[in-house]
Amino acid sequence: MTTQTKGRQSIAFAQPVSILSGASMVGQKEGEGPLGDLFDCICQDPMFGTESWEQAESTMQKETAQLALGKAGLTKEQIRMIFAGDLLAQSIASSYGLVDLEIPVYGLYGACSTMGEALSLAAMAVAGGYGEYILALTSSHFGSAEKEFRFPLGYGNQRPLSATWTVTGSGACVLGRKGGKACITGLTTGKIIDYGLKDSMNMGACMAPAACDTILRHLQDFCRQPEDYDRIITGDLGKIGQRILFDLLEEKGCDIRQQHMDCGLEIFDAEEQDTHAGGSGCGCAATVFASYVLPKVETGEWKRVLFIPTGALLSKVSFNEGQTVPGIAQAVVVEQERKA
Amino acid sequence: MTTQTKGRQSIAFAQPVSILSGASMVGQKEGEGPLGDLFDCICQDPMFGTESWEQAESTMQKETAQLALGKAGLTKEQIRMIFAGDLLAQSIASSYGLVDLEIPVYGLYGACSTMGEALSLAAMAVAGGYGEYILALTSSHFGSAEKEFRFPLGYGNQRPLSATWTVTGSGACVLGRKGGKACITGLTTGKIIDYGLKDSMNMGACMAPAACDTILRHLQDFCRQPEDYDRIITGDLGKIGQRILFDLLEEKGCDIRQQHMDCGLEIFDAEEQDTHAGGSGCGCAATVFASYVLPKVETGEWKRVLFIPTGALLSKVSFNEGQTVPGIAQAVVVEQERKA
Repeated sequence: MTTQTKGRQSIAFAQPVSILSGASMVGQKEGEGPLGDLFDCICQDPMFGTESWEQAESTMQKETAQLALGKAGLTKEQIRMIFAGDLLAQSIASSYGLVDLEIPVYGLYGACSTMGEALSLAAMAVAGGYGEYILALTSSHFGSAEKEFRFPLGYGNQRPLSATWTVTGSGACVLGRKGGKACITGLTTGKIIDYGLKDSMNMGACMAPAACDTILRHLQDFCRQPEDYDRIITGDLGKIGQRILFDLLEEKGCDIRQQHMDCGLEIFDAEEQDTHAGGSGCGCAATVFASYVLPKVETGEWKRVLFIPTGALLSKVSFNEGQTVPGIAQAVVVEQERKA
Repeated sequence: MTTQTKGRQSIAFAQPVSILSGASMVGQKEGEGPLGDLFDCICQDPMFGTESWEQAESTMQKETAQLALGKAGLTKEQIRMIFAGDLLAQSIASSYGLVDLEIPVYGLYGACSTMGEALSLAAMAVAGGYGEYILALTSSHFGSAEKEFRFPLGYGNQRPLSATWTVTGSGACVLGRKGGKACITGLTTGKIIDYGLKDSMNMGACMAPAACDTILRHLQDFCRQPEDYDRIITGDLGKIGQRILFDLLEEKGCDIRQQHMDCGLEIFDAEEQDTHAGGSGCGCAATVFASYVLPKVETGEWKRVLFIPTGALLSKVSFNEGQTVPGIAQAVVVEQERKA
């Protein structure tokens, strides 16, 4: 057993973990956005052929898992375990989505940071020798998320400009010991950070402090500067969260303006598509990563990126009880695979 | 990197992972049960000094984490990461319970199997060299769980005899490379198993097939017999689930009647305490493990046990939409530490 810890909260893998494939499936609105051409599959039916939003999300997650397996040239029997989760209460999108795959599962809850958490744990598992091929998977669905956290869609209630639009999408990656064109070389585990904000319609602001904390800790642990990354990619901070992140980092003497990209700001054309502050949801970071970020690293256009999905930790109950909305951010370092 | 996989779904650690401490905190009813003398702390106030069931559960989780740290002689700064989760939507008991600890966190959702999942991932992380000390933690609370899944307590609705009683309790273990009197030597990752049952008031029946699947897979992967264990300990199958588990295993030619113990059947005196089929909830398996199972392994009264918390994967929404209740079971092998 080699100690692979780095600094206070990070891990640097002695042997990088290969990303064998990335797959993404989205809904119609995401397909009409700026990244529309990049997704593997766009489903025009928001119900994905099922009878409820929840079943729709489960179906999307199952199909995306199978896409990722197919792109990696693997059968489900070859996948040792899955790390997966979603936004719904008791993670039901994952539970019902994964049952037919008959693959061992560890269920996660990290709100919209789930893809960062799933990639982190899957990479730790591969590097630890616990499985040759491991799947990281997550999803969100606009309909199921609005029902879970906000108002019935039929109300047509108005949304403040600080609100984000939950992405209907699922992203999956198969990790393995070798064979991909990109790899995970390290990670930084996030702390739960609570600045006392309570506005669930401004989740970017709630999550920005967590993104700031994880980014600073990551740079310290690895003794790196923002310039050491081609992109520093948050999950779904949106317009307002991004501005707050820049301000918070600036107070600490750190400027990532040149490198920063936010998946929530990439996936929709906010003005044209009326999505206000940007996209959000577990599926936002996951689909943008699989469809847009990963190929750019694989081709070497970006040599090294820091991918940091951010999550807002709240529930209907905690919101109704007047609780704050803490955030969490889980970071992974993704680099082009170097040939041995 | 050594391959530590065993069979199809299991891991055998090349270097066993030490359990440095176990801590448990419960409510009054659990304190009055057969294991009352064994828990570290019994809180007479069901609100744990707070204003809501959810905050009560968060407080209990935080206190239990600190108890486990104290018993291991560690400060929170020495804990590299926490694996934690609970039953509530979006795992809010954990999110709000852990924020003050300022320790990096990976959030889990495994329903009542969470302690098995947390111990598994914490052991994998320690054995992988990702941290010297790692905390596995979970909780449940009768009040918050009834509110989350069933009816407001004030209704006083009647419960069928197949129903279980959610344990108010939190259990935590600190894992590390060495120094404890017990250790985790292996694990088996569970699949989601769905036999099509839909009765959320009979969760033992819903979870028994998953327990059966994980136990059989474990014995096959490790080439062991039930007799190789002093106890095979499920989480919260209760009376009915236990009977179904025995029947299902018998069909496969496996008899664990001599070794089987169910935490849900141990924690309450069902007749005296009117808890029907037994105790349940993440806190059931976790508190019984920390207070009762672990000390027996530490003293060598039991040399080797298989601990398999079981989870019923449902939500209010999935239940109301007429979905089935799949189950999952995560197994860890706990043995007395052998002196090198």
